[in-house]
Amino acid sequence: MKVKLTVSYDGTNYCGWQVQPNGVTIQKIIEDAIEETFNEKVSLKASGRTDAGVHAKGQVASFILKNEKVSAENIAKALNTKLPSDIKIIKSEKVEDSFDANLSAKRKTYCYSMYNSDVILPLIDRYSFKIDDRIKVKNMKKVARLFKGKHDFKAFNASKGGAVTTERIIYSSKIKVKENNLLFFVTGNGFLYNMVRIMAGVLYDAGLGKITKKDVVKMLKTGKRPYSVKTLPAKGLTLYNVKYQK
Amino acid sequence: MKVKLTVSYDGTNYCGWQVQPNGVTIQKIIEDAIEETFNEKVSLKASGRTDAGVHAKGQVASFILKNEKVSAENIAKALNTKLPSDIKIIKSEKVEDSFDANLSAKRKTYCYSMYNSDVILPLIDRYSFKIDDRIKVKNMKKVARLFKGKHDFKAFNASKGGAVTTERIIYSSKIKVKENNLLFFVTGNGFLYNMVRIMAGVLYDAGLGKITKKDVVKMLKTGKRPYSVKTLPAKGLTLYNVKYQK
Repeated sequence: MKVKLTVSYDGTNYCGWQVQPNGVTIQKIIEDAIEETFNEKVSLKASGRTDAGVHAKGQVASFILKNEKVSAENIAKALNTKLPSDIKIIKSEKVEDSFDANLSAKRKTYCYSMYNSDVILPLIDRYSFKIDDRIKVKNMKKVARLFKGKHDFKAFNASKGGAVTTERIIYSSKIKVKENNLLFFVTGNGFLYNMVRIMAGVLYDAGLGKITKKDVVKMLKTGKRPYSVKTLPAKGLTLYNVKYQK
Repeated sequence: MKVKLTVSYDGTNYCGWQVQPNGVTIQKIIEDAIEETFNEKVSLKASGRTDAGVHAKGQVASFILKNEKVSAENIAKALNTKLPSDIKIIKSEKVEDSFDANLSAKRKTYCYSMYNSDVILPLIDRYSFKIDDRIKVKNMKKVARLFKGKHDFKAFNASKGGAVTTERIIYSSKIKVKENNLLFFVTGNGFLYNMVRIMAGVLYDAGLGKITKKDVVKMLKTGKRPYSVKTLPAKGLTLYNVKYQK
């Protein structure tokens, strides 16, 4: 049967989602837990990879389990007894054989978290990027709105990203302020390599007054990114959820 | 000069505040940073110890620095360059010689965080205790109110606590609900050993319907704690702030 897993993880101690020769990855840890539990070697397919240090509230992954006797709903519980406390299966369910966690995904939501403080705040810093005090949130909000719609996001694609087309649709893009946290929520039909972290870098520069709305319009038009724009650190990024057609 | 430090830490990887022969403590890490920076061996005095795994948003500690040339305000910045990212000095200031982080403290506020979920949530679990789904928050709120006032908290004192008197004044005690988080905030003139974690255990049992308001009134009267009450885990506890007379 085809099984869909909704997975949450604290990415701090992992080399990202995808299995790789060196370093511990989230995919490998879950695949090992499946093998240990069901005595089957499986290959997990995620909605998309997340980079080293990126977190997930609701990553989705699918795999084929030969054992048809197991109740799909109980797989989560069984795997969670084997998984470390920083990787847990929130939900497991049986899906159509045609389901593919990556290809069937319709929308993804990411959240990039920044916090405003002179000092590193140990209880926030693990999941958030510390920004400078003199930030103008109003400017950030204005720029965030520009991302909405169908655009060529070439300027927001990391050089090693191998996407065939750089056009994406952004359904929602906004900044929420929660005490001294700034949360950038963005929902789209897909994202290029490092796209959200580059968007966050642009927003950061907008907050600092280094980039204007006009500059961002130009980036979307020309596909060129100013050298000064930073790709913000992985630890501030969380894959919030992935939606599929009902 | 006498220096007051406001300190924040993620207690996960430490054996608590106080220096001890085995294991890395927060006090030792900060004392070492002071020695490295100012070439002076000092002894830090905190508002109170925090146990292994307990966090702090605003712990307060004081020490005497012989070097009078340093600007007290800049000590935080200097120490932070030496401190790990899970221990940071939020503020440093010069205080009266009579100031004593422990004896001068007037009120302390703690927060015990619980979250409601069937599954361990990796992005919340580090600083919060997972509780059962069928909890009744209303009952917890009613019991939390009973802690307010001057009481003998003998029933809320861990057996190895060496306090001379077990009477304490609680100024504020309430439960705040934030999405699926339950936060128990309690402010008092002082706390016995493990007192907040035992209070949280009582609230948890109240939520589960195992303990009634009547039982708690009895605990405060007789000084006896039912065997069933648990001391909830350290990781859910955060020392929020410590207040001193102006």
